[in-house]
Amino acid sequence: MKPTNIEHIGIAVRSLEESIRLYEAILGLKCQKIEEVSDQKVRTAFFKIGTTKIELLESTDPEGPISRFIEKRGEGLHHIAFKVNSLKDKLSATKNAGIRLIDEEPRPGADGLNIAFLHPASASGVLIEFCENRENR
Amino acid sequence: MKPTNIEHIGIAVRSLEESIRLYEAILGLKCQKIEEVSDQKVRTAFFKIGTTKIELLESTDPEGPISRFIEKRGEGLHHIAFKVNSLKDKLSATKNAGIRLIDEEPRPGADGLNIAFLHPASASGVLIEFCENRENR
Repeated sequence: MKPTNIEHIGIAVRSLEESIRLYEAILGLKCQKIEEVSDQKVRTAFFKIGTTKIELLESTDPEGPISRFIEKRGEGLHHIAFKVNSLKDKLSATKNAGIRLIDEEPRPGADGLNIAFLHPASASGVLIEFCENRENR
Repeated sequence: MKPTNIEHIGIAVRSLEESIRLYEAILGLKCQKIEEVSDQKVRTAFFKIGTTKIELLESTDPEGPISRFIEKRGEGLHHIAFKVNSLKDKLSATKNAGIRLIDEEPRPGADGLNIAFLHPASASGVLIEFCENRENR
């Protein structure tokens, strides 16, 4: 089962306001929405490009995953999210194909999506997220 | 001027064959094309997802940019390429908006595209490429 589209690309940033200013200048369009996702300890800003979004991620907690990523690697590309029609089926097929999962089961994410992450060790160092619309379930 | 779509996402990998195997398992689809781009010192493999491609990049030269990236940061997400209608106009607008460019002028890239890179220091640590179809010019 192949993904329908790249839902978003996540970028870890130190200051959401400063990075929104830069990406508005680079992309030539306005940030669509700012949202706090408290269980992921981030504030996010979205830019829509065709069928994909650029998602800037600022940590709201010095112990959160985005803070730890920036401490270790600096600001930059953090993850890719692929949209699928059935997340449960996709996770099971991916696991059966020998790929290591972080999340064995879908869990609720931001923006009305169910999400699950794969382990970067099985994806050439890339953190990959699969997601589906929650209303599908 | 906003981009029409994300043309591709580049991933730096050590072994193209090993990463093709992993991404075929993750994405549930076959690699479309393998291409050597000698002036960028890489071999690339493409996967098409909607209007975007995943581009795996293996260095053909230990001194090439992908080798140096992997030495410093390990395998992983390397750059995002945004497609635009007029690369020359986009570069000029981006520069005027205060963003630092690596390439002041379009140059020929792989796959029938003209390309130009922005400086990661002006993009929250992300290497951004703009590209246009060469036949546009």
